[in-house]
Amino acid sequence: MRTSIATVSLSGSLTEKLTAVARAGFDGVEIFENDLLASPLTPEEIRARTTDLGLSIDLYQPMRDIEAVPEAEFARGLRRARHKFELMRRLGAGTVLVCSSVSPLAVDDDALAAEQLSRLAGLAEDFGVKVAYEALAWGRHVNTYDRAWGIVEAAGHPALGTCLDSFHILARGSDPKGIEDIPGDKIFFLQLADAPLMAMDVLQWSRHYRCFPGQGGFDLAGLLAHVLRAGYRGPLSLEVFNDVFRQAEAGPTAVDARRSLLVLQEATRPLLPEAAGLAAPPAPVVPTGVAFAELVTPDVVPVTGLLGALGFRRGARHRGKPVDLWQQGEARVLVNTGPAVRHGGTALAAIGLESPDPAAAALRAESLLAPVLPRRRALTDAPLDAVAAPDGTELFFCAAPGLPAPAEEGGDPGHPEPRDWTGDFEPVPPAGPPERAGQDGAGRPEQGSGAGSVTRIDHLALTQPWHQFDEAALFHRGVLGLSGGESVDVADPYGLHRSRAVTNAEGSVRIALGVGPGPSDDGARAQHIALATDDVIEAARRFRAAGGRLLAISANYYDDLAARYGLGDEELAAYRAFGILYDRDGGGEFRHCYTESVGRVFFELVQRDGGYQGYGAPNAPVRLAAQRAAGGAGR
Amino acid sequence: MRTSIATVSLSGSLTEKLTAVARAGFDGVEIFENDLLASPLTPEEIRARTTDLGLSIDLYQPMRDIEAVPEAEFARGLRRARHKFELMRRLGAGTVLVCSSVSPLAVDDDALAAEQLSRLAGLAEDFGVKVAYEALAWGRHVNTYDRAWGIVEAAGHPALGTCLDSFHILARGSDPKGIEDIPGDKIFFLQLADAPLMAMDVLQWSRHYRCFPGQGGFDLAGLLAHVLRAGYRGPLSLEVFNDVFRQAEAGPTAVDARRSLLVLQEATRPLLPEAAGLAAPPAPVVPTGVAFAELVTPDVVPVTGLLGALGFRRGARHRGKPVDLWQQGEARVLVNTGPAVRHGGTALAAIGLESPDPAAAALRAESLLAPVLPRRRALTDAPLDAVAAPDGTELFFCAAPGLPAPAEEGGDPGHPEPRDWTGDFEPVPPAGPPERAGQDGAGRPEQGSGAGSVTRIDHLALTQPWHQFDEAALFHRGVLGLSGGESVDVADPYGLHRSRAVTNAEGSVRIALGVGPGPSDDGARAQHIALATDDVIEAARRFRAAGGRLLAISANYYDDLAARYGLGDEELAAYRAFGILYDRDGGGEFRHCYTESVGRVFFELVQRDGGYQGYGAPNAPVRLAAQRAAGGAGR
Repeated sequence: MRTSIATVSLSGSLTEKLTAVARAGFDGVEIFENDLLASPLTPEEIRARTTDLGLSIDLYQPMRDIEAVPEAEFARGLRRARHKFELMRRLGAGTVLVCSSVSPLAVDDDALAAEQLSRLAGLAEDFGVKVAYEALAWGRHVNTYDRAWGIVEAAGHPALGTCLDSFHILARGSDPKGIEDIPGDKIFFLQLADAPLMAMDVLQWSRHYRCFPGQGGFDLAGLLAHVLRAGYRGPLSLEVFNDVFRQAEAGPTAVDARRSLLVLQEATRPLLPEAAGLAAPPAPVVPTGVAFAELVTPDVVPVTGLLGALGFRRGARHRGKPVDLWQQGEARVLVNTGPAVRHGGTALAAIGLESPDPAAAALRAESLLAPVLPRRRALTDAPLDAVAAPDGTELFFCAAPGLPAPAEEGGDPGHPEPRDWTGDFEPVPPAGPPERAGQDGAGRPEQGSGAGSVTRIDHLALTQPWHQFDEAALFHRGVLGLSGGESVDVADPYGLHRSRAVTNAEGSVRIALGVGPGPSDDGARAQHIALATDDVIEAARRFRAAGGRLLAISANYYDDLAARYGLGDEELAAYRAFGILYDRDGGGEFRHCYTESVGRVFFELVQRDGGYQGYGAPNAPVRLAAQRAAGGAGR
Repeated sequence: MRTSIATVSLSGSLTEKLTAVARAGFDGVEIFENDLLASPLTPEEIRARTTDLGLSIDLYQPMRDIEAVPEAEFARGLRRARHKFELMRRLGAGTVLVCSSVSPLAVDDDALAAEQLSRLAGLAEDFGVKVAYEALAWGRHVNTYDRAWGIVEAAGHPALGTCLDSFHILARGSDPKGIEDIPGDKIFFLQLADAPLMAMDVLQWSRHYRCFPGQGGFDLAGLLAHVLRAGYRGPLSLEVFNDVFRQAEAGPTAVDARRSLLVLQEATRPLLPEAAGLAAPPAPVVPTGVAFAELVTPDVVPVTGLLGALGFRRGARHRGKPVDLWQQGEARVLVNTGPAVRHGGTALAAIGLESPDPAAAALRAESLLAPVLPRRRALTDAPLDAVAAPDGTELFFCAAPGLPAPAEEGGDPGHPEPRDWTGDFEPVPPAGPPERAGQDGAGRPEQGSGAGSVTRIDHLALTQPWHQFDEAALFHRGVLGLSGGESVDVADPYGLHRSRAVTNAEGSVRIALGVGPGPSDDGARAQHIALATDDVIEAARRFRAAGGRLLAISANYYDDLAARYGLGDEELAAYRAFGILYDRDGGGEFRHCYTESVGRVFFELVQRDGGYQGYGAPNAPVRLAAQRAAGGAGR
């Protein structure tokens, strides 16, 4: 279906907005009147600009407080309308949005509303314009879509139809099924917006908290299915505004917006017997595991010191680039000291995701507007498909399982792709404390073993730029096919943090997306790699014995822990000694501790037992305060 | 009365918070458990620190989900409680807050709640601790203050009382009059918080939108009067948290907090027959006019060029400092090029307020914790009392009327204070375009005259730092005795702006406080001086003829204006030519236009007719967009 977006959904000047909309691949726009008023361009120049950009102007909006008013007031309204219709002719906009009246002058008289709207439509017709009448959820008398449709039906004018807005319908809890009773050709327009489920004044909710489909709590696929069953085939248009988008850059917001419409169309298809023109991106290819996490660093020593103390061993080096592979169990960390190192010190720059079909995963990502990265291949490199997440983290799609035995390499020369990425690495002699270094016969590093060793990457935690938290969640769910958990608010002593994890069904890929209290904290966005172990006390003991420093947790936390849970004295003493935090859910337990930070990055050692599904959120305030006190990356 | 504040109301580490609380002059604190858990200090060290700072620990909080639960669960609760009571003994905290249960295990049985709370109080007594039971507005069964009191009364234990929290009482719309039926000595604690009136989920409302008394919409003076009539004489304690305070610096927030309690006590006194220990700051002395606005600038040429084109003339120079007085009608602008110039270019640094009693006004300000500035006097200077507003703007209290005839100077040597501040200035020869320069016989500048001249300063608009908007409004109302208008939201293309004006009854002092979309905009906080004229078209014409540049407004705005109002063609053409904006309210009209910016500062020419009371808010988006486009200070 054609896609469109209201200019009020984006930040910037009208021309900035139009450019961002076109670049994101939308077909059209709704022109919000204030954007036009503020623009130095004439209507003709705006029309020419949209034409150059390949955009149609699908709607001009809004016209307010016109219907069901005393005749003298309506006459004034018609005079205003004549100006607007003339303007729309210059602009090349064929449909105007009329919102149900909120004026104190409006009377509760649907017959009068129909009569006046019919006269308005007659005037519109003279200008070649159509009128789409919409019920605002806070309309003075008309505040439901079925009542608005009743008025349109009674008016019976060919240039008058209704406009449906998902927010106004769903925020009031109306049953959208009745939409199917409206003839499709009388639904002149469809505006889509999602919103988090909140019990608050609907006007404030609408003005400050709307979000793109899939970022809130409304069932928009269900609503869209009703609209399509009614026969509507016009554009899907986003009218979304909230306090964050108003400030965010228009370009990325427009991409986020169009991605939301693609995911929405995909989610709606199964609800209908036929395609109804809905877009069908390639099916998601859910990653099955984490192949690697890649750290870039301007100074390799602190990073490898930390990895070494955690029990990792450098097992291989890239054949053509200054990238080392550090490994322990199934946990693999690449350390990149190449010239591509970003500004800003040590950072988690890339994640390798094991995929059952890397090429299909990349195709899915590209079709959902993920920026595809040039394949960073040397002559002998496995061509890895990669895309950039909203925060700039590079996501590589790797053949799964990530690490076949070296003997398998090149075993099938007739099927060069996907090749195993580890084929680009060649084994190196061990380097590290002699008492733990070792190499097996095949030239691969000895993997950590026994209690307290690291078995795999449990999760990756990435603090998102302030403006991109919802976008990031939709990206990871839509593009990667991961499932999103609940959004959790955590107050640390310096502000409110939100976090939301996305995971695959098995829990073998877990990415915790976080966001700090405000844009000013964006510079120091913390990232961390959580490593799974089956014995966190032993892991912490080994780490410290190898010279590692653990984050110190306040004694008061342990006094409180003692009061909350019946933990053994010995256990508590060990937690206290190593700064291990504890949490419990349904049947499971979670024990975790933190290393010091290098740049923006730190490590967490985690022990999950009994099916614990969370990330220790109740401990976050204490951890964040401890990191603040240590001057580390927790801010 | 004693004042106290919960540590959760402030941002920072526990020791930062305690220091800020003590410096702001509070008598005590409530220790929020998470702050203690996150602190590296032992309870004994925290106790010592508070004692050193002269603070008492008035409350330890919160204890949750303890009452009306099955016996096994209650036994676990008692075990937790024993730990906490022990901790409180170490801390020296005499009262613990118990919130009504939200646990799904809690049963709807007040007798059981009373019985268990009585047993809890018995245990508390063993540790020398008292229990204050509070109804959370979202408590599972107990969510009103009268029900909580009923349970406490039924329990009948001397170590058990109730805690009243204004938010929980007023957010649910409970009638606070019933408080008077509770014996004062059974009200163990009183927590105060205000909140803007919003229709939203009460838990979210409470967590994110609480504010200090006087910053929201609750009648806290009325509530406090009921509590005092009941006989409560304990501390007034603030338990306020919102998303902004969580990030703001603790020091200024604590001052803002204590100021709110002083203003609240003052507002409560008239409601009671006796003083009841309420603080009584000196009465406010409302300013009667604006004596001057002072611009500091590192480069005098653009500023004086602008003033000259606006029709101001340099009339006098300070005897001891590089400060010039520019004047037109009753509008006076000081231009300061001295070494005290702040970092950041041209800015509005000070405002002179005409006061019927400058010394009393300063005393009032000081008693409400306004930072008193050193009197910047040279040997011959009039000693002007000055305080700093939250955004750093200096407010000078000047004798009113601000500008007696020069002949009056020094006329009464026996009464040196308050002396007229203009006595520190000596007349200078005219400088400016010869066709408009002039001097009267007394060596004072010719004041602008005739249609289009500037008559006075209409208002001053100051964009506040993001964290200080509510604080600034309370400051200007509380300290200066001005009245606050409605808070207005304005969406410009780049974000949401809020503004709120404070005025005296006559409208001769108007200060418009604004705040931008987010902290990242703080660097470019715009400030402007609005100048009143009785003919804004003529004023704009004169300004342009003198070489001034007016902000260009888009043609689309005028097309829309034509559609909205029945304005004459000639009038519209003039608006269009000069970039004049138009607004209308009840019976009044407002016409206004803007100069280019110098540094953060620009001027507005305004014409108010027919009792118009606003500031042209509907035009703000267009104005802000035009300033963005011009690269000016409107961001």
